[in-house]
Amino acid sequence: MIYLYLMSDSNTFEKKELKKRSENLSDWYTDVVLKSELADYGPAKGTMVIRPYGYAIWEQIQEIFNKWIKAYGVENAYFPLFIPMSLFEKEKDHIKGFSPELAVVTHGGGKKLAEPLVVRPTSETIMYHMYKKWVNSHRDLPILINQWNNVVRWEMRTYLFLRTSEFLWQEGHTAHKDENEAQKMQLQALEWYRKLYEEYLAIPVVVGEKSQTEKFAGAKSTYSVEALMPDGKALQAGTSHNLGTNFSEVFDIAFQAEDGKRNFVWQTSWGLSTRSLGGLFLTHGDDNGLLLPPKIAPIQVVIIPINNDEGINATSQAIKTTLEDKGLRVKLDNRDYQSMGRKINYWELKGVPVRLEIGKKEVESNTITYVRRDTLAKLQINNDSKLGDEIQGILDNVQVSLFERAKSYLANNTRTAETYDEFKEIMKTKRGFIKVYWEESKESEDKIKEETKATPRVKLLGHQKPGKCFLTGKPTQDVWYFAQSY
Amino acid sequence: MIYLYLMSDSNTFEKKELKKRSENLSDWYTDVVLKSELADYGPAKGTMVIRPYGYAIWEQIQEIFNKWIKAYGVENAYFPLFIPMSLFEKEKDHIKGFSPELAVVTHGGGKKLAEPLVVRPTSETIMYHMYKKWVNSHRDLPILINQWNNVVRWEMRTYLFLRTSEFLWQEGHTAHKDENEAQKMQLQALEWYRKLYEEYLAIPVVVGEKSQTEKFAGAKSTYSVEALMPDGKALQAGTSHNLGTNFSEVFDIAFQAEDGKRNFVWQTSWGLSTRSLGGLFLTHGDDNGLLLPPKIAPIQVVIIPINNDEGINATSQAIKTTLEDKGLRVKLDNRDYQSMGRKINYWELKGVPVRLEIGKKEVESNTITYVRRDTLAKLQINNDSKLGDEIQGILDNVQVSLFERAKSYLANNTRTAETYDEFKEIMKTKRGFIKVYWEESKESEDKIKEETKATPRVKLLGHQKPGKCFLTGKPTQDVWYFAQSY
Repeated sequence: MIYLYLMSDSNTFEKKELKKRSENLSDWYTDVVLKSELADYGPAKGTMVIRPYGYAIWEQIQEIFNKWIKAYGVENAYFPLFIPMSLFEKEKDHIKGFSPELAVVTHGGGKKLAEPLVVRPTSETIMYHMYKKWVNSHRDLPILINQWNNVVRWEMRTYLFLRTSEFLWQEGHTAHKDENEAQKMQLQALEWYRKLYEEYLAIPVVVGEKSQTEKFAGAKSTYSVEALMPDGKALQAGTSHNLGTNFSEVFDIAFQAEDGKRNFVWQTSWGLSTRSLGGLFLTHGDDNGLLLPPKIAPIQVVIIPINNDEGINATSQAIKTTLEDKGLRVKLDNRDYQSMGRKINYWELKGVPVRLEIGKKEVESNTITYVRRDTLAKLQINNDSKLGDEIQGILDNVQVSLFERAKSYLANNTRTAETYDEFKEIMKTKRGFIKVYWEESKESEDKIKEETKATPRVKLLGHQKPGKCFLTGKPTQDVWYFAQSY
Repeated sequence: MIYLYLMSDSNTFEKKELKKRSENLSDWYTDVVLKSELADYGPAKGTMVIRPYGYAIWEQIQEIFNKWIKAYGVENAYFPLFIPMSLFEKEKDHIKGFSPELAVVTHGGGKKLAEPLVVRPTSETIMYHMYKKWVNSHRDLPILINQWNNVVRWEMRTYLFLRTSEFLWQEGHTAHKDENEAQKMQLQALEWYRKLYEEYLAIPVVVGEKSQTEKFAGAKSTYSVEALMPDGKALQAGTSHNLGTNFSEVFDIAFQAEDGKRNFVWQTSWGLSTRSLGGLFLTHGDDNGLLLPPKIAPIQVVIIPINNDEGINATSQAIKTTLEDKGLRVKLDNRDYQSMGRKINYWELKGVPVRLEIGKKEVESNTITYVRRDTLAKLQINNDSKLGDEIQGILDNVQVSLFERAKSYLANNTRTAETYDEFKEIMKTKRGFIKVYWEESKESEDKIKEETKATPRVKLLGHQKPGKCFLTGKPTQDVWYFAQSY
């Protein structure tokens, strides 16, 4: 009773029913996420259900990320969902930043609780309360712990994957003996995020530091990877915080150093959430549906027999086995109650990178007709001993093409501005990133946001060439990316 | 900066500090769980933190179980944490069973909610609310979905892993076209649990059906695997429910059958939680600490160089590489600030199945001294090309020995009783399982429980030979296992 993996058999989708990406990105996005069975709306406001096809992509991301962090020495663990309010309030900037978004448990086991419990929106406070117990000597450092879990930040209007009350993420939380080690860790996490986006999700990102206004509540500095969506808005795609000793001083996480002194630990935290999937679905795709990069596609190759015929079925099954032996994720769609046309629509909607069509002609000539999801070009390859390598080569090519396409889009939509008038004109007519010299100040940030809806997304890291602030004309070396954002 | 995996460097554990398992199992259990860094108490009442060493075992279980369920066609997904109270209340037995244990969110985003949200204690209601939307035709069936998540069932007194307000688990939820398929699924899940316990955790289990009193709230029938702990009490270790059409009728999950009729789906749900880890730690172990079965031990082999010497270090590293290439999980403990004695105590506490000691003598004679954690016997093997296979063989042997030992314990502590007097005497003096013919009734179940603290754990599945009820003397074919339980 093996179930036809990741597909709903009575799905009555027809291509013409899908909203057009070329007409309205946001309408298309919601429509494609629902129709391709990635996700659905949950019954409580702001919540969503991640359906198997969507969750399988999250599992791919988990597998990739776990490999990297474990090789580095980070260990997974699990900390409680409920944080006593008094604990959550300890770090003042932290509670100030999060208090408008909290969900609070007031009743448990039929009784009103003496102290309300916060449903974690992030786990700094509860984890560091424990770290205090575990750290005594410099020999206990570094602590490198990550957890994969669910967090809640109150939202009333769901935007599937991109804005939900509850989401899944990983949160890494480290403690180090000094600033240098903490900085190294903060940069390492940022690099993992960059690599995940660029090399797996085929999404180029801009990397840098957040402004004082936009940094994490309680952090010394926040680094972020930012992706540009097809509507010209930026998506904050993963963040890495240097917490300095802000939390360790409040939670009293101190250790005996090698020189005998008692020092507070330096800490970092870093997170990447199921929001990344929203960015993925928005970035790649067309009027026919999703377009999943092969490296993270739950199904990389779908095989469709053109007729229900013994020879065709046997050949299709043999090809499936060959490709699976090669390590590919393959689906054979041999439903005999669906037409070829509907099957093609269905798998294009689902964004499977490569489709193989096997008919009488193919069986007789030992060839296979294949269609790349990105170009929709229909081509032939030989069904011979090199098949596995050939298909792997096509998948690699799709992966590269998607990334190149997204890079071109990013390059074409990143503009510079020397004056505020130029800046306003671009933001009004074109959106995208605007790269400028800017001397950070809360006042000018507020003014720009009010007048253009754009915010500073990141400041490039490292020393830059001297230039002049696009607003004040004053000399500065700070180069910033501005954009409107999700 | 690879961190010394899964160990706390300043741990000052000494063997004499550990409570004795031979004196008090419960005190030893809590002590060993804390000291071996499997878990710790969370700040909110009833909660616990699963530390990396404990979580790594859960990850092993996830990997094993995912392989089985995915091969069967079950897909992972994620459903929301919060269930609107009105949805939770729909199935009357369900809400009646769970209402004393609920945690309730009454405030979100700074406001009192119009409708309180239940923090899921289990996900039948929210999942089946969605299934209704997804099921139309017999072609949408079966639905085979699992999720790995956290659930909350209010508890005030934490017993690490065994009783906590929040725990991690997997919950499988399936929908089928008829009773036959549902029964098959219910049995399949039970079989996965049996296999996991017996073949991986080295814990023999008794398998069968729960009484009407003990079945899941809302189920038609509940099957369970039950393990016998060293104090003679049973641990319910995994349950699989046939929900019949109880939920589908309430949630209106119906489909057009092949004959055109509209039928309600038959459903199952089945779960296994981090409680299984509690059973694992209780079952295996001794006065020196934990004893982890090799198949699920996060570290299978620890290598300890006896001196800090170039030749010894090189040999130790080479052995580590050899064993890792063989696919083993290996740790090299080359901390030079800890004595050999402390290292041995530490790794025995942690229950690592095999320890290798490498000194001058070993390097010169091309041998390795090894110690099995179960027997503590110190033996020699050759350090040659067969090393990987030899060590794998020793690990396999430890796995088998642990299971055989636990099976003997189970056999020696499973008794039969023909009369209630006999039953009472056994339960008073020896505990363990008592296997009896029993004609189920709520009245006699209550009476037995009150007078002996024992409850019916499971009824054996399938037709049994005729016998006589140990209480009433009436003829019955039902054979039950009774025990006091966790």
